Amino acid sequence: MSRTDSSSSETLKRFRELTNRVKQYEELLGVVYWDMRTGAPRKGIALRSEAVGALSSEMFKLSTSNEMGELLTRLTQPDEHDRLDEINRRLVKETHKEYERNRKLPPELYREYVVLTSQAESAWEEAKENNDFPGFVGYLERIIDFNRKFIELWGVKATPYDTLLDLYEPGITTAELDRLFGELRTRLVPLAESIAKSNDQPDTSFLTGTFDKEAQKKFSRFILHEMGYDFDAGRLDESVHPFATGLSPGDVRITTRYLANDLTSALFGTIHEGGHALYEQNIMPELAGTPLAGGTSMGIHESQSRLWENMIGRSRGFWQRYLPDLQALFPGQLVNVKPEDFYRGINVVKPQLIRIEADELTYNLHIMIRYEIEKMLFNEGLSPRDLPEVWNRKYTEVLGVTPANDAEGVLQDVHWSGGSFGYFPSYSLGNMYSAQMMHVAKQRLPKLDEQVAAGELQPLKQWLTEQVYQYGKMLEPKEIIEKISGQPLQSSYLCDYLEDKYKDIYRLE
Amino acid sequence: MSRTDSSSSETLKRFRELTNRVKQYEELLGVVYWDMRTGAPRKGIALRSEAVGALSSEMFKLSTSNEMGELLTRLTQPDEHDRLDEINRRLVKETHKEYERNRKLPPELYREYVVLTSQAESAWEEAKENNDFPGFVGYLERIIDFNRKFIELWGVKATPYDTLLDLYEPGITTAELDRLFGELRTRLVPLAESIAKSNDQPDTSFLTGTFDKEAQKKFSRFILHEMGYDFDAGRLDESVHPFATGLSPGDVRITTRYLANDLTSALFGTIHEGGHALYEQNIMPELAGTPLAGGTSMGIHESQSRLWENMIGRSRGFWQRYLPDLQALFPGQLVNVKPEDFYRGINVVKPQLIRIEADELTYNLHIMIRYEIEKMLFNEGLSPRDLPEVWNRKYTEVLGVTPANDAEGVLQDVHWSGGSFGYFPSYSLGNMYSAQMMHVAKQRLPKLDEQVAAGELQPLKQWLTEQVYQYGKMLEPKEIIEKISGQPLQSSYLCDYLEDKYKDIYRLE
Repeated sequence: MSRTDSSSSETLKRFRELTNRVKQYEELLGVVYWDMRTGAPRKGIALRSEAVGALSSEMFKLSTSNEMGELLTRLTQPDEHDRLDEINRRLVKETHKEYERNRKLPPELYREYVVLTSQAESAWEEAKENNDFPGFVGYLERIIDFNRKFIELWGVKATPYDTLLDLYEPGITTAELDRLFGELRTRLVPLAESIAKSNDQPDTSFLTGTFDKEAQKKFSRFILHEMGYDFDAGRLDESVHPFATGLSPGDVRITTRYLANDLTSALFGTIHEGGHALYEQNIMPELAGTPLAGGTSMGIHESQSRLWENMIGRSRGFWQRYLPDLQALFPGQLVNVKPEDFYRGINVVKPQLIRIEADELTYNLHIMIRYEIEKMLFNEGLSPRDLPEVWNRKYTEVLGVTPANDAEGVLQDVHWSGGSFGYFPSYSLGNMYSAQMMHVAKQRLPKLDEQVAAGELQPLKQWLTEQVYQYGKMLEPKEIIEKISGQPLQSSYLCDYLEDKYKDIYRLE
Repeated sequence: MSRTDSSSSETLKRFRELTNRVKQYEELLGVVYWDMRTGAPRKGIALRSEAVGALSSEMFKLSTSNEMGELLTRLTQPDEHDRLDEINRRLVKETHKEYERNRKLPPELYREYVVLTSQAESAWEEAKENNDFPGFVGYLERIIDFNRKFIELWGVKATPYDTLLDLYEPGITTAELDRLFGELRTRLVPLAESIAKSNDQPDTSFLTGTFDKEAQKKFSRFILHEMGYDFDAGRLDESVHPFATGLSPGDVRITTRYLANDLTSALFGTIHEGGHALYEQNIMPELAGTPLAGGTSMGIHESQSRLWENMIGRSRGFWQRYLPDLQALFPGQLVNVKPEDFYRGINVVKPQLIRIEADELTYNLHIMIRYEIEKMLFNEGLSPRDLPEVWNRKYTEVLGVTPANDAEGVLQDVHWSGGSFGYFPSYSLGNMYSAQMMHVAKQRLPKLDEQVAAGELQPLKQWLTEQVYQYGKMLEPKEIIEKISGQPLQSSYLCDYLEDKYKDIYRLE
């Protein structure tokens, strides 16, 4: 080790060590969380949660340490900062933001919160299984109380809920979301109404029946291969709530769930999580092991899952190519189905109770309901005990369907058990981002439709890698969408896309 | 929080915090190791190994910190020590021993070693698959060099190898092992020779064929249930090298491997690992979360796996009860097999190449070979590059079989890739411990044979829980065997047991 290193490169070296250490702990915790969700034994959960809390707390201490503060102070001074390369600049900026945020939380409070949410996820699973909201609401109350405290400590933005939104989509506000959701409502509700009145409803009879789980698994794996998912850098498992987790670009895991009586659940769930996974697997190698090796925001992340799930996986061309493969696995149910009928069947619009099984159009209404409820919880003091009532009322009002029980109502999503308030809007942001991106992709790849219809999915994956995936957190969400499309996020691309698609399917006008 | 705590209880509290923290990190690392062995994606291994190294190194720092040293100094002073309850005394003693040992290792050296062994295990898997010893020997050389350094730092006991032996079986020496293996050889080699000459060889034809993997899995799960393995506190998976890992008493996992052409591999592998697991699942709850929640030595641990695998799983009574269940799953192969023939078939003695598939009798010879080779590596400067030659020569000399390649020779075991030199003798120690324990068990449970033949395995599990499992590390191996049998470890019980069993099976004399 030479002693000619200048003090500035020593600062940078130590800073990189510290941030990489934090990332390493995050990776290990990621394995443990994955394990908890894919079959960790019930009786080990309590102690495991304590251990997770201990390491999270250590990670938190590192990222908020005085040493980290001093390093950041030095590295943000103009003379030091000018000498940094692009990656290190971005790393300093991201770390600084996290540091400022986390320094405002007392470590003990944070540790308790991690233990609580770690236990709450198992409690939610049980509550959902047993339709037992009262058995879960105590966790929820405590999680919400913690979040209210966090908001106070971080500082209230325009509204308390704005403070949470910023965690998942930097810069987004309730004001902007109110506007975007308003525009979606203005154009999509009439569309949904026309669809409901259409006399040309798709046949969906072939989508229900009994579908062998092993055959479903086989097709899920096949489609992931086709998308370019790298099984040497990931694996496919099962869990109650499907998810993707990027532990490192070399280990990006997917889960799905196979329902015996529903072909589409695992099918589109897998493609959705596969989209998340393509993002994380294709981050540039230079970022691996650093905190920049991850998606830049939840909205951009969801844009990729939903682009692959809906704009590819539910497209006409995709099933021209892949229906024969699916038919070969399920000859009994699908033998006489034509690609066009299959395409129409999987795109049926039908208001129903479960978000993750919703169609592309009404999905945004599921999100709107959650968005409104979260605003009520944090901006209007809604009590968690009143959630089932509010939930059921809104579903009845907005979607015209009423949950028969909490398992298919307020207990359906994992997010709140993990404390992810402010996350849900990301799904609709993702829909809007993806439509805006695909609008450009079709200009840049003029043969895209034909390629998809021929099972050539790699040109699109390659284009998305160049435009989005490779950057990890090197670019902000706003930078990404403006770089691709030359303008900020709009709702119009999504509305145009949905109108075109559904007017065709339902033969409207 | 009251301020009336005396300073001594503050010391204890902090000591417990620190030791529990170390145990928590160990538990998290245990999950990650389990994951690496049961299907973690190949491309994530390099970065994962770095992360494992980072946390192991943090764990190491905590357990060797000056604070830990000061706490131990205070807690070992007579006035403080007298006030401790039994659990805390034992905790102080165990921690002190670890502290003394670990303080002698430079943290950076240790970190490098953890990263190395973490990578080496994947390298070994690949090398074994590709029969590529040269591709692995570089790892092995470095691991051995590290161990030689460790021995120097810890201090050479009677011989350098003695220093390693003490890690796994406190107090054992090459002198004692030379004596014990000598006695085993004196009585078992003539026995094996008589068996080879017997004209009454068991029929084993029904054990080969094609055995459906799902049916094998089903039977493995069934037998674990019968043994009293708690699936709410564990899970059964597959891995190249079967193992059991006790992450906490509420999460004790087993792996096995299913061979399509060999019924016995998964069957006895599962029972073996199940024995390890019963030990860890039944440690008294008061020890959970502390470093005392684990087996007291590798020899005692192996005594339980081998007791269940051989003395129960390969007993006559066991198959009187369970053969019909096995036949129901494999009617084609087993329909006409009688319990007595099955019993004789699974106990066939046949020198062969693979340790984990060896019979009960020659198994000890496999261990003896490894013991002798490890002594050569550390006491006689054997070069790792010469291992295949030495290995093949010894197998030819001792067992009369010669590996056709390194995959079925020197590459067959995972242990060395993880740096576990000095571990192998534990298996034969386990055999000796188990025979000595079963000698007593049959006196204490006079109906044991009938119970096993009726599928009543819980009285034995209960007795072993009382005598062994519950204590975790509260008792030393020597204390356990003396408390049970009133005397130190003897080789004679194992020899008596094997002579009785095999003279009967082979109808000798």
